[in-house]
Amino acid sequence: MTDFTATRALFDLPEGLVYLDGNSLGPLPRATADRVARTVTEEWGQMLIGGWNKAGWMAQPAALGDRIGRLIGAPAGHVVVGDTLSIKVFQALAAALQMRPDRKVVLSDSGNFPSDLYMAEGLLGALGPDYELRVVAPEDVAAHITDEIAVLMLTEVDYRTGRMHDMAALTAQAHTVGALTVWDLAHSAGAVPVDLIGAHADFAVGCTYKYLNAGPGAPAFIYVAPQHAEMARPILSGWLGHAAPFAFEQAYRAGEGIARMRCGTPPVIQLSALGAALDIWDTVDMSALRAASIDLSEAFIAGVEAACPDLTLASPRDPAQRGSQVSFRFDEGYAAMQALIARGVVGDFRAPDIMRFGFTPLYIGMEDVTRAVEIIADVMQNRLWDRPEYKARAAVT
Amino acid sequence: MTDFTATRALFDLPEGLVYLDGNSLGPLPRATADRVARTVTEEWGQMLIGGWNKAGWMAQPAALGDRIGRLIGAPAGHVVVGDTLSIKVFQALAAALQMRPDRKVVLSDSGNFPSDLYMAEGLLGALGPDYELRVVAPEDVAAHITDEIAVLMLTEVDYRTGRMHDMAALTAQAHTVGALTVWDLAHSAGAVPVDLIGAHADFAVGCTYKYLNAGPGAPAFIYVAPQHAEMARPILSGWLGHAAPFAFEQAYRAGEGIARMRCGTPPVIQLSALGAALDIWDTVDMSALRAASIDLSEAFIAGVEAACPDLTLASPRDPAQRGSQVSFRFDEGYAAMQALIARGVVGDFRAPDIMRFGFTPLYIGMEDVTRAVEIIADVMQNRLWDRPEYKARAAVT
Repeated sequence: MTDFTATRALFDLPEGLVYLDGNSLGPLPRATADRVARTVTEEWGQMLIGGWNKAGWMAQPAALGDRIGRLIGAPAGHVVVGDTLSIKVFQALAAALQMRPDRKVVLSDSGNFPSDLYMAEGLLGALGPDYELRVVAPEDVAAHITDEIAVLMLTEVDYRTGRMHDMAALTAQAHTVGALTVWDLAHSAGAVPVDLIGAHADFAVGCTYKYLNAGPGAPAFIYVAPQHAEMARPILSGWLGHAAPFAFEQAYRAGEGIARMRCGTPPVIQLSALGAALDIWDTVDMSALRAASIDLSEAFIAGVEAACPDLTLASPRDPAQRGSQVSFRFDEGYAAMQALIARGVVGDFRAPDIMRFGFTPLYIGMEDVTRAVEIIADVMQNRLWDRPEYKARAAVT
Repeated sequence: MTDFTATRALFDLPEGLVYLDGNSLGPLPRATADRVARTVTEEWGQMLIGGWNKAGWMAQPAALGDRIGRLIGAPAGHVVVGDTLSIKVFQALAAALQMRPDRKVVLSDSGNFPSDLYMAEGLLGALGPDYELRVVAPEDVAAHITDEIAVLMLTEVDYRTGRMHDMAALTAQAHTVGALTVWDLAHSAGAVPVDLIGAHADFAVGCTYKYLNAGPGAPAFIYVAPQHAEMARPILSGWLGHAAPFAFEQAYRAGEGIARMRCGTPPVIQLSALGAALDIWDTVDMSALRAASIDLSEAFIAGVEAACPDLTLASPRDPAQRGSQVSFRFDEGYAAMQALIARGVVGDFRAPDIMRFGFTPLYIGMEDVTRAVEIIADVMQNRLWDRPEYKARAAVT
């Protein structure tokens, strides 16, 4: 079992900061700077083009995919890393749709991350006017799973509220009517135990810059269930997903299994940072992490609710229905979050009124929760958010 | 004018190596390691999520795009960086096709990089059975530009032979019949002067890890001509191409102009390396670079042809029809290239029989050409390639 008081020392966090935003961008692991420097100086600098073989760059997307696979219940050889999450959503959804050519409806919910819905919109618009993206409220998803549905495309953990779907139940229901599933694990991988095989998920995608701590703009990953791996047709049929990329054939032949979900040249420097981040994850027991995360978030909710009647819990109260974040609603949430950040408690704000706080046991302990609650109480009880400097909006929030 | 004897000192090349493979992966600029380290340690490490604003990460794709734009004749505000070249090809081709909804044929040539053809295949396969990818020989392209053609999609400089298309003439011909053009500048950007505005190109894409020296897996770029910028519909409609990404609206609204060609979260660490690489390019006069490149490649051809009758020039003899690489055909080209690499002359091999050598005046001078010719002559005249260790093929070549 992981000792979560020891893992904190593996991260380079600024002194005095309570960083509750690892659900948006994970902090820098201490080993990453050296690892990246070696990739740049010793590998790229010294091996040049030879790095693709000698430093194993070309093998990284699959090797790193396997390491992520362990965290999400995927068998080795069924996850590959690359591109961005939006691209991977597009790729998974297109492959799923091609496996259900007689159906035209993609079902999603309004709690999905907007980019997933946008990518679906772009894809369906290109496929033709008979395709439809049907977006319902999260609580209405089950009622809308009918035999019209080609693909059920959901983000497991809601990016605003932390509300978690029941992946196994919804997937089973989708399969009953002959639909396939695409699960976005952006707020699940490294946050909660995921069992893709156990849940019979068909496709899954996720990112590595949040809970996995691989750095800003770190690449995404994609999973295709073993039974679909040789059937899924890649719409983004790039050369590195070809059966023989370096034969430079004129026509596309899909590579074996998950390899076909590779597309262009992998981002070697970002992959190096991902490798360093996964060194920590390789040691983590996800059940222990989940237990620690629930302890932290339960204490946080109790503390905030006791001290701040103006904040309304936006997350499910039952921890079993929550990911690893806690959100509160407050009309002046943007300003309140700025006031908190100015006092060293970093969460973030999501329109229109959500204050988000991520709980990441690898580097957040109970003393951080205590301190965060004290500062939130001070900001709320003394209306410290009610200052013009906190109300001016930055470009990126 | 750039002093190309001085620019060499800006690169960190292994002692004694003649690196003629900058057309595949550019070498490490000396300033890059520190730049990347600062992005990792001071920006990500200290600013955490705040880096998106404070370190200007979010603005980098457009800012770096403008700097690339200067090298390819694009006005400011019309180039953006992100994803991989394969993804950008897909994006440009899809946008061009949507602007010619009554036509179904994409014309390309067998000199195009295979991934461009593969991506077109994936896209057209999804759009429907009435779409056709028509691939002809490079010399036959002009004769096939008819009013059936929706989009002419070409790589300006052939990755194997270095043969260069006449972008302005082919674009003009395409426009005469109402077709649009997508130009891949993978072997043009930083290799030869490119004038996208002067050539009236409609769309262009390219990569930054070859001549631009941004590192393994560095991101790609895309250009949309000003007159199309507000009309082009992004099929890869990701959140960062949305008009208001942080409003988290449920439906997609395309951002202004080139901004809509952004998709997912940008690879911040790779962008940092690209920034360091472009610091060098910001000072380069492309006409002077072109003149220097021709001097080098002419001397190389003369030297090799005089000493190695077994090597047949695969590149156009007229330097005006050549990019910044020279290729020779040789049946045992793979083994010969391994023998050269073992002796410190690094070019590369492209199936079935092409030995490629890139000429990059930023860090390659006439003394490198002389030395390369001597070593090639030794390998060829003494049949040094005829050894088992040079014939065993590596996974990536």
